[in-house]
Amino acid sequence: MSESLKKIDSFVLFGVLGDLSIRKLIPAWYYLERDNMLSDSLQILGVGRKDVSDQDLKERVKESLNEFVSPEYLNPVAVSRLVERFSYCTCDLSKEESYIDLSLKLSDWTKPVAYYLAISPRLFEMVCDGLKGSNLITPDCRIVIEKPIGFDLETSQEINEKITRHFDESQIYRIDHYLGKETVQNLITLRFANSLFSSQWNSKGIEYVEITAAESVGIEDRWGYFDGMGQLRDMVQSHLLQLLCLIAMEPPNRLDDQSIRSEKVKVLEALKSLDKDSILSHFVSAQYTDGEIDGIKMPGYIHEDDANQDSTTETFVAIKAEIQNWRWLGVPFYLRTGKRMASKTTQIVVHFKSDGHYIFNENKESLKGNTLIISLHPTEGISLQVFTKPHGVDKHSTVRLDPMSLDFIKTQKLLNIPSGYQSLLMDILNGNQSLFLCREEVELAWKWCDNALEASSQSNQELYYYNSGSNGPAQSEELISSHGHSWHEE
Amino acid sequence: MSESLKKIDSFVLFGVLGDLSIRKLIPAWYYLERDNMLSDSLQILGVGRKDVSDQDLKERVKESLNEFVSPEYLNPVAVSRLVERFSYCTCDLSKEESYIDLSLKLSDWTKPVAYYLAISPRLFEMVCDGLKGSNLITPDCRIVIEKPIGFDLETSQEINEKITRHFDESQIYRIDHYLGKETVQNLITLRFANSLFSSQWNSKGIEYVEITAAESVGIEDRWGYFDGMGQLRDMVQSHLLQLLCLIAMEPPNRLDDQSIRSEKVKVLEALKSLDKDSILSHFVSAQYTDGEIDGIKMPGYIHEDDANQDSTTETFVAIKAEIQNWRWLGVPFYLRTGKRMASKTTQIVVHFKSDGHYIFNENKESLKGNTLIISLHPTEGISLQVFTKPHGVDKHSTVRLDPMSLDFIKTQKLLNIPSGYQSLLMDILNGNQSLFLCREEVELAWKWCDNALEASSQSNQELYYYNSGSNGPAQSEELISSHGHSWHEE
Repeated sequence: MSESLKKIDSFVLFGVLGDLSIRKLIPAWYYLERDNMLSDSLQILGVGRKDVSDQDLKERVKESLNEFVSPEYLNPVAVSRLVERFSYCTCDLSKEESYIDLSLKLSDWTKPVAYYLAISPRLFEMVCDGLKGSNLITPDCRIVIEKPIGFDLETSQEINEKITRHFDESQIYRIDHYLGKETVQNLITLRFANSLFSSQWNSKGIEYVEITAAESVGIEDRWGYFDGMGQLRDMVQSHLLQLLCLIAMEPPNRLDDQSIRSEKVKVLEALKSLDKDSILSHFVSAQYTDGEIDGIKMPGYIHEDDANQDSTTETFVAIKAEIQNWRWLGVPFYLRTGKRMASKTTQIVVHFKSDGHYIFNENKESLKGNTLIISLHPTEGISLQVFTKPHGVDKHSTVRLDPMSLDFIKTQKLLNIPSGYQSLLMDILNGNQSLFLCREEVELAWKWCDNALEASSQSNQELYYYNSGSNGPAQSEELISSHGHSWHEE
Repeated sequence: MSESLKKIDSFVLFGVLGDLSIRKLIPAWYYLERDNMLSDSLQILGVGRKDVSDQDLKERVKESLNEFVSPEYLNPVAVSRLVERFSYCTCDLSKEESYIDLSLKLSDWTKPVAYYLAISPRLFEMVCDGLKGSNLITPDCRIVIEKPIGFDLETSQEINEKITRHFDESQIYRIDHYLGKETVQNLITLRFANSLFSSQWNSKGIEYVEITAAESVGIEDRWGYFDGMGQLRDMVQSHLLQLLCLIAMEPPNRLDDQSIRSEKVKVLEALKSLDKDSILSHFVSAQYTDGEIDGIKMPGYIHEDDANQDSTTETFVAIKAEIQNWRWLGVPFYLRTGKRMASKTTQIVVHFKSDGHYIFNENKESLKGNTLIISLHPTEGISLQVFTKPHGVDKHSTVRLDPMSLDFIKTQKLLNIPSGYQSLLMDILNGNQSLFLCREEVELAWKWCDNALEASSQSNQELYYYNSGSNGPAQSEELISSHGHSWHEE
């Protein structure tokens, strides 16, 4: 946003043959290409361990598009334009000569360069050192990394230390792909461009907020990796707390990186730490057991392939989070995320306070406030739930009400939706960091999660169980219903 | 709404061959018939001066439907079912024997009866006396009258006196057909069932309100009638002040007649009277001159057929109204109505306060609050104007805004829309007076209009002029722009 933005045309993608690149990043590049968003001079150098040719990579790019872009969006001209941008460099990241090869390849590319590390965090330090050793780090170059940035506060700090040894904070782009989603960005316009909402976006206007990220898949082939993390570290520390920040942050002074990040940091600082006194009433963790989804039997977590049957890692958490500041006093933010649940649903539900006397009937159950549903999955969109009169004349001259969903932002089928990476790739090229995480955010989020896990462990808190295909354990319902609230289920 | 509602099955329509009946009431009965809203035993006795037969009336009913109901809505079964309900009674309303005939016709009808006076107000007293004389007034019977209920406070009181001599207030249904419109009724649900709106429906949340009823027609064949009234008496005293009441009233304790009427009365009582000090800055009246609409030349008001060329009757008024109570301190209600304007538009626009700092660009012009547009013509519907992000990725990573209209209540083409009489006829049958005017409302509205006209006259206020086909005189713009506001034009 600021005038100092500098566009770049040289992009290096480490891990170009890996899953993230093939499934997400290359298709995202394609959509940008199709929509004529890319500069003619943009070049992408793919880096991988395998010894393949430029031509092999180009073929792999085409295969990726055929597999991960819906056929009706494939435009042959755009495909070949994108493919032409790619070239390849074989690198053993542990070897100095690899970086010399890289530097030769890049010698006549325009500077600065963006380095996207779509590789294991274990390798971050090695790559940074390698780039440094071959003088590939210039003051304007950019480095892009993605979670997991550590396993807890300490390991996260280690990774951040290593990267900041060579890169300034203004060069580091920490991705949370949720923030690239259209709807998340629309949340910002909704909050700050519409007086009807902004004037009530506080404890006077809002009763409670739910943030749910339910997955229907289980652990699949990454049991070992996941078992060391658990759902809190895997999902809450990153995505859920980021969504919470965007919902809860104070209006930024400006729409630039510094202003937005500083407001998000303030939310995380104000997040009430869970301790031994509060953990039992604010935190539920659980693990899925055998069950059924759509009539198909599903194994429990400890019956998955490669599982350690003694594991007590949580695959579900529900949390009542509280933000200790002026705006949010007394407004619970309920977070809920789990694997192998009834359906894949990612949504934020903002419950406005019901105000007062209800004149349409005597039924107290109808005394509901309006709700705003910000949906990221299975559809993307924002809708406002309102009450209107049923259409037409009433035979008995009574006034009845119909709940109605008002699509604030047009709902789209998931198929049509960019993954969120498009907009983030564009921001990297343009040098706009406002939707990327700063170090302080990442570390504050870890600190909060570490405290919760520690308090839970010190209290010998029970691990609950839920059937595969359910909405989680009964204790998750109790967590919210004890305050007179309830989870919004479709 | 109350449990004491008593449905009736006998309906007498005075003036069955007149314009109002043929154009509005009979088509309204048809829609109710088509939608199976009418009880099998409902009978309608048409009363007219002409000596025609039952069969003649039935033919006239069919002609009315063919002319005033769109062919695709005509269902032959419903048409003949409706026609069968009608019978006819020839009456010279000035003769006693007519009422004896009427009483004979009604002798075996179920009681009580509703009497709808679709006739000149001059005849109201005569009819009431006639009904009384033939013992046709029972404690539960209902009488329905429509504006003009007088020409000023005094004449209005005279009419009300005459009617209340024979009928209790609970038996009198004073129609304002605007209140029968779907959208007006939806305004009540919008205001009182949706916390998002109700919580901001006051001077803290609302900047100003506009109520516009623009007509594109001129005076047509009723110059003489209109010239004695003028636009303030013809439109503001009734429709515009009624809409103002529904927008401004406090939440009623219940949704019944007493509660709603008493809140409307309170608004009219709180309406700041226009006096010599305030009239010049709060009131603009004007008359249309020669002009063009859609390329067709139109005569000015004093050049219409039958016109008196010296007339200074206003065909346009714009008013800044103020409500002196806790809720509306400092919130202007701008009223505007005129004939021979650019287009036929009836709408209420509620401008929510813009709140504060605008971060999307430096352009102060964009610092707008949300608006709610309640449209009665040419479409019926309620829409919320919001600001959203344009769809898709921005090439320069900047955040832009698009204004967008959110259809709160589905917009309908006018063709499909009941005139408003359906719902009011149903309310008469059901005995629900909540959307009918009580005497106090009518008289308070007259008092306010009388004061305005008197203050304008005492101040020798200038009559302005505007071209046929325009949005009114420049002074109407100045009235609103002097407060930093503007009329919403489509």
